[in-house]
Amino acid sequence: MKLESAAPAAVVESIAAIGRFAAARGWVPATSGNFSCRIDGRSVAVTRSGVDKGNLGPEQVAALDLDGPIPAGMSAETPLHIERYRADASVGAVVHVHTVASTVLSRLHAPDGVLNLSGFEMHKALRGITTHETDVALPIFANAQDTVALAAEVEARLGRAPAVPGYLLAGHGLYAWGRTMDEARRHLEGIEFLLECTLEERRLHR
Amino acid sequence: MKLESAAPAAVVESIAAIGRFAAARGWVPATSGNFSCRIDGRSVAVTRSGVDKGNLGPEQVAALDLDGPIPAGMSAETPLHIERYRADASVGAVVHVHTVASTVLSRLHAPDGVLNLSGFEMHKALRGITTHETDVALPIFANAQDTVALAAEVEARLGRAPAVPGYLLAGHGLYAWGRTMDEARRHLEGIEFLLECTLEERRLHR
Amino acid sequence: MKLESAAPAAVVESIAAIGRFAAARGWVPATSGNFSCRIDGRSVAVTRSGVDKGNLGPEQVAALDLDGPIPAGMSAETPLHIERYRADASVGAVVHVHTVASTVLSRLHAPDGVLNLSGFEMHKALRGITTHETDVALPIFANAQDTVALAAEVEARLGRAPAVPGYLLAGHGLYAWGRTMDEARRHLEGIEFLLECTLEERRLHR
Amino acid sequence: MKLESAAPAAVVESIAAIGRFAAARGWVPATSGNFSCRIDGRSVAVTRSGVDKGNLGPEQVAALDLDGPIPAGMSAETPLHIERYRADASVGAVVHVHTVASTVLSRLHAPDGVLNLSGFEMHKALRGITTHETDVALPIFANAQDTVALAAEVEARLGRAPAVPGYLLAGHGLYAWGRTMDEARRHLEGIEFLLECTLEERRLHR
Repeated sequence: MKLESAAPAAVVESIAAIGRFAAARGWVPATSGNFSCRIDGRSVAVTRSGVDKGNLGPEQVAALDLDGPIPAGMSAETPLHIERYRADASVGAVVHVHTVASTVLSRLHAPDGVLNLSGFEMHKALRGITTHETDVALPIFANAQDTVALAAEVEARLGRAPAVPGYLLAGHGLYAWGRTMDEARRHLEGIEFLLECTLEERRLHR
Repeated sequence: MKLESAAPAAVVESIAAIGRFAAARGWVPATSGNFSCRIDGRSVAVTRSGVDKGNLGPEQVAALDLDGPIPAGMSAETPLHIERYRADASVGAVVHVHTVASTVLSRLHAPDGVLNLSGFEMHKALRGITTHETDVALPIFANAQDTVALAAEVEARLGRAPAVPGYLLAGHGLYAWGRTMDEARRHLEGIEFLLECTLEERRLHR
Repeated sequence: MKLESAAPAAVVESIAAIGRFAAARGWVPATSGNFSCRIDGRSVAVTRSGVDKGNLGPEQVAALDLDGPIPAGMSAETPLHIERYRADASVGAVVHVHTVASTVLSRLHAPDGVLNLSGFEMHKALRGITTHETDVALPIFANAQDTVALAAEVEARLGRAPAVPGYLLAGHGLYAWGRTMDEARRHLEGIEFLLECTLEERRLHR
Repeated sequence: MKLESAAPAAVVESIAAIGRFAAARGWVPATSGNFSCRIDGRSVAVTRSGVDKGNLGPEQVAALDLDGPIPAGMSAETPLHIERYRADASVGAVVHVHTVASTVLSRLHAPDGVLNLSGFEMHKALRGITTHETDVALPIFANAQDTVALAAEVEARLGRAPAVPGYLLAGHGLYAWGRTMDEARRHLEGIEFLLECTLEERRLHR
């Protein structure tokens, strides 16, 4: 394994900025959530374990070799980030949050393995979707503490060209990604909005 | 078509201010929403497509000729702004947001084509209404990606003197306007509050 | 009628501070809400009509003679403030907000004329209550545009020693008061919290 | 009893910081809530009664002897803090807030004396829990104004090694603690998130 090195300042700041945004929204309670950003073809910057995501600096972000083992002090969820970058060279940032809507809906629909969304204008926040007249199938995976196995299961199902830039872990939260941090954030905000609308509709239509 | 020119600084700032307000409220997730302000009898300033509405500056706002075609880089929803100004010389600002309440209620009541509100003191936030003892009929239009046709449909239904300074697009969001940006914001806030109360009543009374 | 004079700077600032607090909470949408503070035994400072309550300064606050008529430019709800000060010399501040919980619950329970609360620790936020083992009866009045008549009706029912430092106007919002602005704010926050809990219980128990 | 002395500046600041955080979240309405931090083996710093928890300084925090009586001006809930420190030398901070979710769920489940949670990833925010595949039993106590007796009841039930670093008081709110203020805050945020998810599930599943 390569020695861990420092992430470039601009990469750290892009991670710190999404962390501040998510913390202000209440999406990373109790030091939950993780954020990462690609440095280059071989390495990525990832938030360390157990830190307040609303107040990130260089000390809270580690630069990791995509081909090396994961060093100590990293979150157990680091493989879920790393494997996304390894599977798809166009992925530039991966974000993970714990929101009430993603936690509750992922538990409610875990037996289905998917949350189906239909007819929202907000679908267009997702890359490649140009009309609300689409069906969006957001995958749901059972939660697991063996995140190496879980990451393999996730990548096997997502395949080469995921239809949606995100998925849910049941009772756990939301993952999203994009070619850039801006796009990952747009996908995160778009999916969370769709989840909030859907949760509201579940309340009304039971 | 006239060449696109810069919007006056005060107009840009009034758009940036409503953008910051809406972003802080969570009403423009994932770069959604659009804001515009009349410059003079022939031109308006409109936010460009795909930008973070909480951080707008001169680069994110374009000045458009009301009689010319819409230049590249503008949001697909620009016609919905432009036609409001063309139809009514008293319109000074148009605002559009994506909120959970407007998205969910517009889907729920889309078959009716209208959301009827009755008896709220907040009706008085809408220009020309002086008592809560009124019925407010908020139009709902089916969402469409052909926004030129949609704008024509909207204006045909609104007519010369719209009873309410706003409408819903089903599964999409809320449009509102006013003689000034301050009035457009008051209408936006008033209608959104009425929608939040109504959504709460739908939860209680199903 | 006495000529209108300027309110002392400290009084204006106490009104501006509660305005900023309420605006940040979303409790004064669309320039709704009013705030007032006693200057002395004969005069009070009251917010003017139609201004953004999150950005108040001396220009948005008027000093009024408690025994004089209400000058132009004041909110139609000014009598609801003035009569509270006239009825009770211990009243030092009156606050009025438009929240979703107060609007929805006041409509739901308007036929009862009261909202009964029981067993909350938060009762103790209300002056003179020292235990959760109390019943709190929050009066509800039908909304009315004749606020002079409405203020007389309110004061007749409240009487010399109101059991609760606040009331609801149906479909309109919440009024609260205190000996000082700090106490009025504590009453406002306490009652609003009780309303939010009660609305949640209505959702669960229908 | 020892004379009351000043708390160290760093301890005051750690209390002020959690106060600002809780106030921004709306978790300490109407001057409710209390926060404390251990100074050393014999003394703790505790917020005084009736102060705005979003704006704490040295004047609003008292240093108390763990073996002495409670001086005047302290909150009636001070014994609930003090006894936690006396019962467990590893407790470094105790936090108490009034949230809608903790108030409503504690009333709903008061007859059970416990709120059972199962399968949430957020369980791992609680010290010593390493998997979502656990059951978390959050104790609920009947509210009482005799807080000396209540503190004794709480400590008797919690015992030497509480399974969960927090509990609910019915109709009152949430208590949590940790070895440090950071850990107490993580426990507070984690439990509150679990309560918000559970309240949402109660809405959906009635």
